[in-house]
Amino acid sequence: MSDSQFSQDTDDDDFGGYIKIDRYNQERIDSLKDNYHNVLKQIGEEPEREGLLKTPERVAKAMLYLTHGYELNAEEILNSAKFKEEYSQMVVVKDIEVYSMCEHHMLPFFGKAHVAYIPNGHVVGLSKIPRVVDVFARRLQVQERLTNEIRDCIQQTLNPIGVGVVIECRHLCMSMRGVQKQNSVTTTSAFTGEFLKEKTRTEFLNLISSKLS
Amino acid sequence: MSDSQFSQDTDDDDFGGYIKIDRYNQERIDSLKDNYHNVLKQIGEEPEREGLLKTPERVAKAMLYLTHGYELNAEEILNSAKFKEEYSQMVVVKDIEVYSMCEHHMLPFFGKAHVAYIPNGHVVGLSKIPRVVDVFARRLQVQERLTNEIRDCIQQTLNPIGVGVVIECRHLCMSMRGVQKQNSVTTTSAFTGEFLKEKTRTEFLNLISSKLS
Ligand SMILES: Nc1nc2c([nH]c(=O)n2[C@@H]2O[C@H](COP(=O)(O)OP(=O)(O)OP(=O)(O)O)[C@@H](O)[C@H]2O)c(=O)[nH]1
Ligand SMILES: Nc1nc2c([nH]c(=O)n2[C@@H]2O[C@H](COP(=O)(O)OP(=O)(O)OP(=O)(O)O)[C@@H](O)[C@H]2O)c(=O)[nH]1
Repeated sequence: MSDSQFSQDTDDDDFGGYIKIDRYNQERIDSLKDNYHNVLKQIGEEPEREGLLKTPERVAKAMLYLTHGYELNAEEILNSAKFKEEYSQMVVVKDIEVYSMCEHHMLPFFGKAHVAYIPNGHVVGLSKIPRVVDVFARRLQVQERLTNEIRDCIQQTLNPIGVGVVIECRHLCMSMRGVQKQNSVTTTSAFTGEFLKEKTRTEFLNLISSKLS
Repeated sequence: MSDSQFSQDTDDDDFGGYIKIDRYNQERIDSLKDNYHNVLKQIGEEPEREGLLKTPERVAKAMLYLTHGYELNAEEILNSAKFKEEYSQMVVVKDIEVYSMCEHHMLPFFGKAHVAYIPNGHVVGLSKIPRVVDVFARRLQVQERLTNEIRDCIQQTLNPIGVGVVIECRHLCMSMRGVQKQNSVTTTSAFTGEFLKEKTRTEFLNLISSKLS
């Protein structure tokens, strides 16, 4: 997508470790800074008061961090830790924290993702599942597309017997503005292969609602 | 602050009922739209794809809504429903939903506010307490200042025997980025008069933690 340098470590520079401040990213930050300086003026604030002096730059960096998924490749991540293994039961990674941004209002939505697959000769390093969730969540999204993208990426890369993805999120665009519903949670799901059968899907849904698994 | 028309009804126009689209506000929306169009480009998105076509305008309106507190006057709101009444016990309004925006990262923080006062000849219409919370929350804020501003406004307008304010919030700037602490909650408090005494403060804190009151 660009020649910028995005790292997947989380602790090796000054904002989350994801964004290297090379020339390309510095130009993006400078351009975003100008935008957010004007946003402060338009909403009726004083961009020069002490508390706001560094805000345009912080917001610029925060936005790049919150959308760094555009720069990552989920298939590469999965392929980097794919191992031959004869295990053939369901693998479930549940309660994966999800933070994303609604593409309509650029407000956060967040909650949990639960991902399962049934291996077909290959398993994947467990930590790679939450990483794949993050690759797609750290973009402007709608929850339905996020759910499908995670499913499709796992299906295409691991070619498993089936994939199941369930996501439950609170959307701030519905609670802090708009219809102002405080506690509504949106649940979406996507399945392939074996998970299209009711028995497998029920097992998956039972496992993610259990307190033990 | 401006000659714009902000209404306090919540259902009489097309975004939250707070912002009338007069010429002044239309100019602000247009200017913000340009900014958010560029934000889409800088983060690596395609502003012309279908899902994003209306995004700059939605974000512009959302930002104005989320900061409409600058246009409201909390003292006027309290004075508009101030009644002579000899009640002299503590009045507590607890679990008031708070949605605000961190002034450092322009990311939401949200949770609950609990407000108490001991009347001094006057009480105020109950709904005006959450309205005052909103006037100060719907701005760029830090939680400590938000807490103090609510306290000071009530103290100055009602001149009660004392005021107590406790706010508990989750800051997305600490969970979805930065230190990435998922469950940390920040609690702040501010007191005047009688609430500076331990006995009164303890009664208030007991009332807000009780499931019954
Ligand atoms: N299906 C789906 N809809 C979403 C998501 N995020 C999100 O904002 N929406 C919806 O996108 C729609 C945008 O509609 P709109 O163009 O009328 O925007 P608006 O701000 O005036 O709508 P609103 O005030 O009802 O939120 C809203 O219904 C909003 O709830 C999502 O992840 N999935
Ligand atoms: N006291 C207080 N601090 C706040 C609030 N909101 C908020 O972002 N902060 C803090 O403001 C500071 C801004 O610091 P900074 O200039 O180093 O910004 P940064 O983005 O690099 O910091 P970070 O990555 O640690 O969040 C952070 O410590 C952040 O946690 C608030 O309501 N009250």
